[in-house]
Amino acid sequence: MAEQNRQEERITGEVLFEGRMLRLERDTVRLPNGLTTSREVVRHPGAVGIIALQDQHVLLVRQYRYPVAQETLEIPAGKLDPQELPLDCAVRELREETGYRGIVEHISTFYTTPGFTDEVMHLYLARDLVWDPLAPDDDEFLGVERIPWDEAVKRANQNEFNDAKTILGILLVQGRLG
Amino acid sequence: MAEQNRQEERITGEVLFEGRMLRLERDTVRLPNGLTTSREVVRHPGAVGIIALQDQHVLLVRQYRYPVAQETLEIPAGKLDPQELPLDCAVRELREETGYRGIVEHISTFYTTPGFTDEVMHLYLARDLVWDPLAPDDDEFLGVERIPWDEAVKRANQNEFNDAKTILGILLVQGRLG
Repeated sequence: MAEQNRQEERITGEVLFEGRMLRLERDTVRLPNGLTTSREVVRHPGAVGIIALQDQHVLLVRQYRYPVAQETLEIPAGKLDPQELPLDCAVRELREETGYRGIVEHISTFYTTPGFTDEVMHLYLARDLVWDPLAPDDDEFLGVERIPWDEAVKRANQNEFNDAKTILGILLVQGRLG
Repeated sequence: MAEQNRQEERITGEVLFEGRMLRLERDTVRLPNGLTTSREVVRHPGAVGIIALQDQHVLLVRQYRYPVAQETLEIPAGKLDPQELPLDCAVRELREETGYRGIVEHISTFYTTPGFTDEVMHLYLARDLVWDPLAPDDDEFLGVERIPWDEAVKRANQNEFNDAKTILGILLVQGRLG
């Protein structure tokens, strides 16, 4: 069977909004069948998340998430600064959010929600943690919680976290640790 | 220790863009320390994803994702129509994208990326599939691939998918079936 062409070709585009964190674009594209449509895309700098293990526990961060109007319990995470390498970002965010520096190892890279944004998430496993804090961002108010690893795995399997990267990261690391 | 207040209170806000799929808002909020800042939020209708099993295989969808400028291999998925229940959306999207109707069971609900959007993803497991197609959206060009379940689990663990809900969904279902 011939390979099907599914590519969409950009015809024109406009930046609708350029903010502190996001850029919203709307492009007119040509579909494979020759018709045109519009695509709304949120451009994002990319982000990291860190599964930080310490003595059979995982370090999670409790914070208020304005977009969802509630506190969530998530793995430490944050956006890439301009030109920052994901590995450097992981080390920095872990220090800012938990106070620890760790030996970090890449475990996964994926799109968070490729239907409307190019946000890429890089996940790292951090071990051998030593206390070496960095000041957090001045608009972040975080609480660190230290959860036994077995309990975190159980919670991830039982739908008790509500953040994708946290569930995914815990399940992936559990698969590795066996 | 006293419970720490981390809530951010909305002072004012504006809708910057209202599109086909997304609404972008910028709110001014009061932080727990009394200072103010702005928060950019992408409002999303919510979405579903379906892990569809058939004879020890899983049905995946290959499609061009304009925001990330490449083809991806993902579980069938789609946005909620106005007033649509997530379960109904899961049944509809599975029929539109694969042609099959299944017995669907809820397995997880989470935020895809709560730092900038309220998008909620509801995941379902579908089994007992029967052929009962619905016409797909006229701007979607999809190819269905039937992958052995063991291979899908291996790929999810080895970072060979690049879509969060696909990795998460496969690992979660494997934990249940395991």
